Amino acid sequence: MTWEEVREKKLSEQQRLLCPYQIANLPSPEEVNDVTGYIDTLFTDEENRIVSLTIEQLQKEYLTRSLSARQVTLLYCRRAAVGHGLANFITEVRFEEALKEAVEQDRFLEQKNELVGPLHGIVVSLKDNINLKGFATSMGFVGLAEKVATEDSAIVKLLKRLGAIIICKTNTSSGMMYSETVNTLWGRTLNPHNRRYLNNGGSSGGEAAIGALRGSSFGIGSDIGGSVRHPAALNGIYSIKPSFGRIPTYGTASGQPGQESIKSVYGVMSYYLENVEYVLKTIIASKPHLDIDAGCLPLEYRSVELPRKLKIAILDNDGTSTATAPLVNAMTKVSSALEAAGHEVVEWPNYYLTEIKDAIYPFFGANGYRSILELIKKSGEPVDPLLSKWFPTARDMPVSELWELQRKRTALTQKYMELWNKHGLDAIITPVSPFPACLKYGVVTLPFTAIWNGLDYSGTTFPVGKCDVSKDTPYPKTEFISEVDRHVHETYAANLAKFDGAAVSLQVICRRLEDEKAMELTKYIASLI
Amino acid sequence: MTWEEVREKKLSEQQRLLCPYQIANLPSPEEVNDVTGYIDTLFTDEENRIVSLTIEQLQKEYLTRSLSARQVTLLYCRRAAVGHGLANFITEVRFEEALKEAVEQDRFLEQKNELVGPLHGIVVSLKDNINLKGFATSMGFVGLAEKVATEDSAIVKLLKRLGAIIICKTNTSSGMMYSETVNTLWGRTLNPHNRRYLNNGGSSGGEAAIGALRGSSFGIGSDIGGSVRHPAALNGIYSIKPSFGRIPTYGTASGQPGQESIKSVYGVMSYYLENVEYVLKTIIASKPHLDIDAGCLPLEYRSVELPRKLKIAILDNDGTSTATAPLVNAMTKVSSALEAAGHEVVEWPNYYLTEIKDAIYPFFGANGYRSILELIKKSGEPVDPLLSKWFPTARDMPVSELWELQRKRTALTQKYMELWNKHGLDAIITPVSPFPACLKYGVVTLPFTAIWNGLDYSGTTFPVGKCDVSKDTPYPKTEFISEVDRHVHETYAANLAKFDGAAVSLQVICRRLEDEKAMELTKYIASLI
Repeated sequence: MTWEEVREKKLSEQQRLLCPYQIANLPSPEEVNDVTGYIDTLFTDEENRIVSLTIEQLQKEYLTRSLSARQVTLLYCRRAAVGHGLANFITEVRFEEALKEAVEQDRFLEQKNELVGPLHGIVVSLKDNINLKGFATSMGFVGLAEKVATEDSAIVKLLKRLGAIIICKTNTSSGMMYSETVNTLWGRTLNPHNRRYLNNGGSSGGEAAIGALRGSSFGIGSDIGGSVRHPAALNGIYSIKPSFGRIPTYGTASGQPGQESIKSVYGVMSYYLENVEYVLKTIIASKPHLDIDAGCLPLEYRSVELPRKLKIAILDNDGTSTATAPLVNAMTKVSSALEAAGHEVVEWPNYYLTEIKDAIYPFFGANGYRSILELIKKSGEPVDPLLSKWFPTARDMPVSELWELQRKRTALTQKYMELWNKHGLDAIITPVSPFPACLKYGVVTLPFTAIWNGLDYSGTTFPVGKCDVSKDTPYPKTEFISEVDRHVHETYAANLAKFDGAAVSLQVICRRLEDEKAMELTKYIASLI
Repeated sequence: MTWEEVREKKLSEQQRLLCPYQIANLPSPEEVNDVTGYIDTLFTDEENRIVSLTIEQLQKEYLTRSLSARQVTLLYCRRAAVGHGLANFITEVRFEEALKEAVEQDRFLEQKNELVGPLHGIVVSLKDNINLKGFATSMGFVGLAEKVATEDSAIVKLLKRLGAIIICKTNTSSGMMYSETVNTLWGRTLNPHNRRYLNNGGSSGGEAAIGALRGSSFGIGSDIGGSVRHPAALNGIYSIKPSFGRIPTYGTASGQPGQESIKSVYGVMSYYLENVEYVLKTIIASKPHLDIDAGCLPLEYRSVELPRKLKIAILDNDGTSTATAPLVNAMTKVSSALEAAGHEVVEWPNYYLTEIKDAIYPFFGANGYRSILELIKKSGEPVDPLLSKWFPTARDMPVSELWELQRKRTALTQKYMELWNKHGLDAIITPVSPFPACLKYGVVTLPFTAIWNGLDYSGTTFPVGKCDVSKDTPYPKTEFISEVDRHVHETYAANLAKFDGAAVSLQVICRRLEDEKAMELTKYIASLI
């Protein structure tokens, strides 16, 4: 089969599985640009009430039998399928299996009068690179479309054990190698807030879009340079990218297998902050280091009491670009709320950020994209230019260079700790990108997120609002910190109308393994604004 | 200056600093082979009583003023200097500074009636690669003999803060690259149990020898393939090599800077098990992740209650060689004691050990020894053949190969966790080497220790006794698992008399970050035998 035939076959299989759950004649992006509210009009009030329940609220209704897992799972399958019709985020479909599991859970509850586990009846979606037995892990490559995983990854084993019901996998960039969810196999995932013009980010873009349209209770994505936080922010949902060792990663696929200079971390993404917290706590409480993933840490979820007077730093640039107006306004809103509540807010210079970026960026692709090149050579497929543009300069780096970069990164991590201590910070608040959401094919380089992977710091995202271009007018700017910065501000000004309605979100950054503090701070800040 | 002149200058500076503390006319190895008991004859009963005090006992005497820190520090300086005369383990001498600090601590105690910290008045020695401001970090290279460190490494900052008194640094193999403590700059450190024939191991051989002769209360060594455990075992002292993240490593030197595929771990070595435990607890309780080393984990020292019925595995080979008689007899002694106490002891096959070895060994030297070659090219010095023998085949590996090895190592780590769980093990007991101590230039490859670095497991060593060749007679053996194995047994049989009196020690291996359990088990086993 040619690669086109493989793709055709794969897409029609997907369509066959989705069809019974879908709605015909959905509006085009030209007809309805923002579908985040529109999707509710396709469901009943009771159905919309159900998807507005957090995990704990849902489980209360299971226990009182006012809802069944089957009923909720079926609703989420329908909503995911309809959402997919609007934003194209599903890759693998697991509706039938999910419904069977839901029926079994209902039966268990009926017989024992207890839940099967802390995620009983909770519908989850997974980023495509998470191996799920019986399904492909294509990561956007036609060459992997028919290769079925023979084993569940560690996170899947854990989620199944906890009772979660997996309904689908979702779209990524090719091999998760860039921050925009478009690829040869599955095409582009749209940004539900602004389908016509705006990019939904990446690489966990499918998870972010399904979250924004509430097609699952929560999702699991991976983040090695911002791949959870960037799309979560661009889609206006909550997320946490903890430090490495809290959430299992073993047995998931990567475009760069064996790359460990910066470890890929799994994160939780949801429309509801309560769900992000609940899932993170549940995963950590399951002690995954014991029997799920040897890479996890024996570190319990440690309750955090926030200091009475917080010291929060505001970082409006990442050394490469400065934030555009909607993000600066969002930071001002958050700063004012914090100050009004008696906390200290300081402007934070971009200390060391360029040095960190220079030390860590060469890690990605340091094998000359060898594994990816071998794959696409076999399949004959073209890859997205966002990936292939790196091939001409790619090289299989000598280990001596890698070691020198690792030495630098470790030294910078130590320096950043010293800096943090010197200033007595509690957290940094910063955007994930200079744009609220970028134009299609318009993502710029993202030290804003990648820096914190380099340091293995903990990061969450939270929505602040939506871009209102009548208020978020471009700043008059004549000096730029780089050509990228100039491009960012010129692009924003020149395309102002297109950015209207974009989700505006920020990150909370805490030190390494201060995931609990990042979570607590995000809840606190969300309660203030 | 030629490299010979640099060495000459360095050695005479050292001699000048040591001279006032030394004793003339010490016996040669031919006159007194085993000096572990002999050294006591050079000191008074009261002096020998003082070096028999554990940290806690010593500090009680400080508090009652029956001893002063100055008095104890001076004694340890003298004993270290005399021990050095017998076994050649010191590199840098810090006696004067140490004595000044001791006087200050005595004054503090007099004024405030409290100790300056949990290591008040406790004399420590450091492996040479630990950067200590104002002293060289030569790691056996003449080319580094005159390069003075401008900053303390993280562990030194911490030890100073806790009140420890650093009296000297100690010898290693060149660049810590092999398991035998001999190099061009400082020469060979002798094994105090058997100076004539036996190797004292490495690379923390200086620390092991000073420990065996009680020239310090405890020492800090580093271990990336066995470098704490191997010499500790060969010198009959206690040690722990925790998993990465418990003891600060930042700012220490390495022969392979930036190598992170297997992270170098720092360990505690002492003649007294109580001291090993006390120091480990003290370091962890100081929360070094907060401000000492960004690579440390926020993991408290967790008290462990051992299960009533332990399941202990006995591993008598590492896939490359099998243990010789003294070690087999030691394992039998420990097994019998455990069984008599009601525990389950099982024989443990060498599951995955060859695969792990093959995955991790290429990490060492994967930069083609580039940093070392540059160094020795500049100085013109010859390096020990134990190191230079690797140069002809060395190559700067492409990153794609490194990643493939890392992928394999991570997969094997997961498999070993599953295996461990399947069998419900509490620990593995195994030697550090097939020999009790090997002949000079007779160290064989050491998967026995390196495997556990590959898995980042926790390991301790404890002495079981001394080799008695009248009882530890070679096993009649006709089948060998490798040519190394044949060589080991033939060497032991052919040189039997030379092994007499060698320290016989074993390792306790627990899972990753089960350092507290390894410690507790070692105490328990030591109490049984």
